[in-house]
Amino acid sequence: MRTVNQERFQARRRHVREAALACFKRKGFHQASMADICAEAKMSPGNLYRYYDSKEAIIAAICEEDRQGVIERLAAIGERPNLLEAMLEMAGEELGAGDPQKRRFGTEVLAEAARNEVVAEIVRRHKAAIIAVCSEAIARAQAVGQIDRALDPQLAAATLVAAAEGLSIQLALAPPADATSHHETFKLMTMRFLQPSR
Amino acid sequence: MRTVNQERFQARRRHVREAALACFKRKGFHQASMADICAEAKMSPGNLYRYYDSKEAIIAAICEEDRQGVIERLAAIGERPNLLEAMLEMAGEELGAGDPQKRRFGTEVLAEAARNEVVAEIVRRHKAAIIAVCSEAIARAQAVGQIDRALDPQLAAATLVAAAEGLSIQLALAPPADATSHHETFKLMTMRFLQPSR
Repeated sequence: MRTVNQERFQARRRHVREAALACFKRKGFHQASMADICAEAKMSPGNLYRYYDSKEAIIAAICEEDRQGVIERLAAIGERPNLLEAMLEMAGEELGAGDPQKRRFGTEVLAEAARNEVVAEIVRRHKAAIIAVCSEAIARAQAVGQIDRALDPQLAAATLVAAAEGLSIQLALAPPADATSHHETFKLMTMRFLQPSR
Repeated sequence: MRTVNQERFQARRRHVREAALACFKRKGFHQASMADICAEAKMSPGNLYRYYDSKEAIIAAICEEDRQGVIERLAAIGERPNLLEAMLEMAGEELGAGDPQKRRFGTEVLAEAARNEVVAEIVRRHKAAIIAVCSEAIARAQAVGQIDRALDPQLAAATLVAAAEGLSIQLALAPPADATSHHETFKLMTMRFLQPSR
């Protein structure tokens, strides 16, 4: 029963990622050790290392999970008649939904990337991949005249991904009473930026 | 000669902040100790503590320096006939000028804020202060019809400050060959967002 084994393997990997996130949250990414993660996951090192052999490998897996999610959500909106509207809705959901623990982890990883070249490379590739899928979505909407064709899709995507990340960091640090109005303002900015003139 | 003493005191404080930034860069904010900063600054603890009594006090001072800089730059553009244009120019300069060491420090501080409530409170106050001065500048430009009056100046400022920070983090992590085109795209987004309709 290969599928059952595969499912079990994936479930164990998810369990390790969740234990790692809990450790990173409590001790900080840099301070947390693989031994801490073993203790949190209630697994022996020999067992845990079958799933991930380093903190960096766990980060890479969390980034990959995130990228898959974005690809799936963007693919789902590909069927909608108004792509720009669908993308704005998705942006609002992403900003609203974010698990605060994961957001904190994101900030820690950025800090670690400043001093750890392996992590920096993982994060750079991750950002580039997210920007690439967003850029493709923008180009598709440009092709049907729903986004201003004068914009460079790659630059527009890079700017919006960075802006959304900045807002996400700010909202995690100082959660406002009216987070929704911040999401709405971000969507308004994005719409005015992207929509075709006149 | 009170003024000379004052100047000397300020120069020593600057020297300590620079030594601290060098330590934070090398070891990370969380890992760097006051002893490391003393060694870097070539000062005894007794001497250094006359200027700053904790890493948190150094962060607070760096934030305050940053806030003063933004206030001064915004005050300087208050005389320009086209406020929106002047603000866009300033945004481009801020994105282009940033000292990479300070940018990395900014990311570290954000990560530290996730686990250290004293630092979180310093950063929250700092962000709120920066947003407040930007919000005032937006309101002034709205009063003379140079920025869309339908926008809430506070929300617009919060969104743009967060977006600029996100972009700054991204450019520090993965410096593109054409950083200028990223700055230009940010300015275009800001202009389309803020400009009065028609």
